[in-house]
Amino acid sequence: MTSQDKLNYRIAKGLHVCVGLDSDINKIPKFLLNENDPVYEFNKRIFESTYDVACAYKINLAFYERDGKKGIESLQKTLEIFPDDVLIIGDAKRGDIGNTSQMYAEALFDHLKFDASTLHPYMGFDSVEPFLNYKNKLNFILALTSNPGNSDFEKLKLEDGTYLYKRIITKVHEWNKFSNCGIVFGATNSDELKENINLINNLPVLLPGVGAQGGSFEDIVSVFQSANQNNFIINISRALIFADNSTKFDVECRKKLIAYNNLI
Amino acid sequence: MTSQDKLNYRIAKGLHVCVGLDSDINKIPKFLLNENDPVYEFNKRIFESTYDVACAYKINLAFYERDGKKGIESLQKTLEIFPDDVLIIGDAKRGDIGNTSQMYAEALFDHLKFDASTLHPYMGFDSVEPFLNYKNKLNFILALTSNPGNSDFEKLKLEDGTYLYKRIITKVHEWNKFSNCGIVFGATNSDELKENINLINNLPVLLPGVGAQGGSFEDIVSVFQSANQNNFIINISRALIFADNSTKFDVECRKKLIAYNNLI
Repeated sequence: MTSQDKLNYRIAKGLHVCVGLDSDINKIPKFLLNENDPVYEFNKRIFESTYDVACAYKINLAFYERDGKKGIESLQKTLEIFPDDVLIIGDAKRGDIGNTSQMYAEALFDHLKFDASTLHPYMGFDSVEPFLNYKNKLNFILALTSNPGNSDFEKLKLEDGTYLYKRIITKVHEWNKFSNCGIVFGATNSDELKENINLINNLPVLLPGVGAQGGSFEDIVSVFQSANQNNFIINISRALIFADNSTKFDVECRKKLIAYNNLI
Repeated sequence: MTSQDKLNYRIAKGLHVCVGLDSDINKIPKFLLNENDPVYEFNKRIFESTYDVACAYKINLAFYERDGKKGIESLQKTLEIFPDDVLIIGDAKRGDIGNTSQMYAEALFDHLKFDASTLHPYMGFDSVEPFLNYKNKLNFILALTSNPGNSDFEKLKLEDGTYLYKRIITKVHEWNKFSNCGIVFGATNSDELKENINLINNLPVLLPGVGAQGGSFEDIVSVFQSANQNNFIINISRALIFADNSTKFDVECRKKLIAYNNLI
């Protein structure tokens, strides 16, 4: 299955919530620390409990890189859990000159076998091109992020009256000749999303910022529904995976996820 | 020694060339492929041959990540080669929301023990802050890069008539309260450097783009010398480390490096 197919298949079932595996070893249930690879066990149980009700999974590479070789081992073991019909996003926010981006693309897509990436647009087209050359993968390019610093540069007004992040969305449409581009758009302010929904048009949107960062799930869904667009993936990390720290954390995570699904 | 001290010590000796260890296993001398860890052996011999005449070393993480666990092993072994008095830059171009950037900072500075990072500015202050909180490390923030795509966004004109990359340089000055910030400024066009030399002022500058990418070493040096500024590090990767592919590759690399030093 191509990454596009994996996403469409889940969206057709009405699934829009991405489970963010920000599996910080300091935050997972303490009883798992007796396991040989606690982070892997945590991810495995979250996955097994949510597989049929999740839209996708997003793995934040920082949480694995922090532990060096051991972290990469947990990451690789985790990636083997997932069957071929579910979209796994490698949230690494890469972006570098061409020959280096090529290496990052090989790392994420060939070596780790992720279905999708997240990318920094700052360095321009040739810095993302090696990723876009993987026609059957998906690439979510940062447009408007969910953090306070988004006002430093992303929201700067350009000479022609538009804003930097809007210019980036326009460019991503131009870059999308293989239908393998999407954008990251912060879900902390649904008015901003509403204002840009026509500009976003048919691009898949990955929305971080719901849950721990304060974005409203219902408001976000409502913006897409009002526009008759269903190309959205709302990522929730901490509010889902750390919903409970007992031995039933996986069951509680599933309950939370279904509760979100029921709001759609 | 702090990272600032390491840099100042080398610059005081008139050393400004950073050896870029873009150690692609497909490009290193073929005879090394018999070694247990060819990339590590390559890096070790380059380092031993250039230690006293280099300003710093820059390790491009993409080239190691591509090989997963094995690559991280080569990277960790390579990092053990370097004594404490030389600056090692972890060129990873990271940038994410606060709690994630914190993990990336721990990965680069605590786990791998790099002296310096390269960072994407796009997401704003809180995305780089966890790195800046390491007061004795150095952080080179992308301003103007050396690739063709720098015209897509970096050179966009803002409402007030300035350009995005210049606005970033101004911001980096504001962010520099621990004197641990620098910028990345592409060396492919020395006129652009000249135009910005006063804006850059006392910030350390890491300049990629000389050598394989076509920037002129002499022109870059001349801009800094004319401005009486010595806070510059010119990175050269492929043109140095792949100067020769015989068993004397390390000797040839040293010769090339000294030839560059003699141009200063």
